[in-house]
Amino acid sequence: MGKRPTQEQVARLAETSTAVVSYVVNNGPRPVAENTRKRVLEAIAATGYRPNSAARTLVSGRSSVIGLVVPDLANPFLALLAQSIEHELFSRAYSMLIGDSADEQRREASVVETLLTHEISGLIWYTVAQPPPQDVLDKLTIPTVILNDIEREDLSAADEAGRVVSVLADEREAARLATEHLVDHGRQRIAHVGGPSQRLNSAARARGWLDAVAASDLRPGGQIAAPFTRQGGFESAAQLVELECDAVVAANEMQGIGLLAGLRRAGVRVPEDLGVIALNGTTAADYSLPTLTTVEMLTADLAAEIADTLDSDSQALTIVPDVRMIARESCGCANIGFGTGR
Amino acid sequence: MGKRPTQEQVARLAETSTAVVSYVVNNGPRPVAENTRKRVLEAIAATGYRPNSAARTLVSGRSSVIGLVVPDLANPFLALLAQSIEHELFSRAYSMLIGDSADEQRREASVVETLLTHEISGLIWYTVAQPPPQDVLDKLTIPTVILNDIEREDLSAADEAGRVVSVLADEREAARLATEHLVDHGRQRIAHVGGPSQRLNSAARARGWLDAVAASDLRPGGQIAAPFTRQGGFESAAQLVELECDAVVAANEMQGIGLLAGLRRAGVRVPEDLGVIALNGTTAADYSLPTLTTVEMLTADLAAEIADTLDSDSQALTIVPDVRMIARESCGCANIGFGTGR
Repeated sequence: MGKRPTQEQVARLAETSTAVVSYVVNNGPRPVAENTRKRVLEAIAATGYRPNSAARTLVSGRSSVIGLVVPDLANPFLALLAQSIEHELFSRAYSMLIGDSADEQRREASVVETLLTHEISGLIWYTVAQPPPQDVLDKLTIPTVILNDIEREDLSAADEAGRVVSVLADEREAARLATEHLVDHGRQRIAHVGGPSQRLNSAARARGWLDAVAASDLRPGGQIAAPFTRQGGFESAAQLVELECDAVVAANEMQGIGLLAGLRRAGVRVPEDLGVIALNGTTAADYSLPTLTTVEMLTADLAAEIADTLDSDSQALTIVPDVRMIARESCGCANIGFGTGR
Repeated sequence: MGKRPTQEQVARLAETSTAVVSYVVNNGPRPVAENTRKRVLEAIAATGYRPNSAARTLVSGRSSVIGLVVPDLANPFLALLAQSIEHELFSRAYSMLIGDSADEQRREASVVETLLTHEISGLIWYTVAQPPPQDVLDKLTIPTVILNDIEREDLSAADEAGRVVSVLADEREAARLATEHLVDHGRQRIAHVGGPSQRLNSAARARGWLDAVAASDLRPGGQIAAPFTRQGGFESAAQLVELECDAVVAANEMQGIGLLAGLRRAGVRVPEDLGVIALNGTTAADYSLPTLTTVEMLTADLAAEIADTLDSDSQALTIVPDVRMIARESCGCANIGFGTGR
């Protein structure tokens, strides 16, 4: 644990949120009532809190740069997440350097190292693999938020130099919600098209699916590992048919959209023969045929939590609980989507 | 025209490509045969070429950063383009700072100014509006590639300070190709769902559509202005029905996918009643129902041209001719797409 006073301590003492403390410290982007501002300034004085990044901004005359590494900018969910993070950082007077690791560990190492040579003051890293390469972790001398659930022991060396902490969307809860909804539709054999088996976030989603299956006294309908792409979903359709299931939870929206196309080709009717729900949905799900029921991560909330974590001294893993199901046609709900008139 | 020797001159003298000159200068990322390397070094000496960015890399120990501003990272085509540009820059040992202007001129000005305070050595700017705000143009003191067709007179002040040049995909040719293909299918009244009317790139696409209509002695089937979004395409379906056309060219893929959903709701069969082709396609078009015929911009080629332009002293507007039609179902071609089994 850091011994320096934290933004949370200031917020607690001033009886306000860390976001408001940040607004006072950064003089924006949102206005703060005069009374609140006074309380925050008093709490800063009382705790001896030193707002690092803001001080850096004042000294250098330019804002700090945060690096972001994602595996695939052409994945609509990751593009949406990158956009949300960029907007959040921008509102806090940070800029964002972005790197795309092309879903390859070798390239990822190189992208992270390139960012580190650019004097970024923080790193947000959606890792490709688990665990991330130890030699790269060892080089992290700046506050780092990893958007993946990595083991603490992998971080020991990095933790001495910098501060590495995970922030996660609650993917397990998202998968549980989706599966439970299919149970509520009376589905008996619910399968899961997951991500590649070596990924930790694949495991979280699989756990949530199993949680809900177990809670309903059903047997799991079988599991398929597929790339997180439309083609991955498309190609898993044939395997899915052999599982003789009546519903499926796909691990992301691209898989779900590919799956709908593959199921059409296989002559499987959705939702009549097979109910489908995909995780990590975006607005693209409004326009497929049938429209695709999804569980969405609230990326704006996730981005705010990521930025709060970078700005604080927190060492704890944060799981952001803000997931929400958007019922459309593919699960068997009424025709409440956009593209419904057939 | 710049009087300093250019990379092109070196390449011509060494009888090789500018890419190879760049590999020699940057010592990578790809290997260069020893003979070729010798010729390039001799040509550099003979011309007196000074490789600016490479020199900077050697001096500072870190590579240069290029800023990229796009209107909407959640647009799959722009995400793909950003990814292609990032990969291209990365291969040339540049890093990329990215800003999302949220399709708003006020925010765009702020994003560009933030990037300029971060010592970027070049800017790639997909502008929201035409012309871009003059006060922002006036601040451009670094080589800038604008991904839009702006008038030279808007640039006079900027040109004195830095170097601002446009690189464009051939959107006019893309629209012409799409329209011509619908004519080849025997369509008689071909409409156009274009972008917002104040956008210059909307105008280029509309011109290409009119080119092909005129060349076929047909009358234009009418034009609708819509946002570059799925919802924009969806909502234009109702208007399209009133135009009594038998084919339509949508200005981007998001519009095209939204349009397919809107037409389904309106009871219009695609391609039987109405042929549809969208511009700026991505692989997402493989998975719609019906699969969506698109014209693709070859974003890797576009990215290479953009990087070449940044690295050179070129003042000329470049139009990258690399567009390619991918025939799928929505135009009336055979079932050659992925999601074809209905």
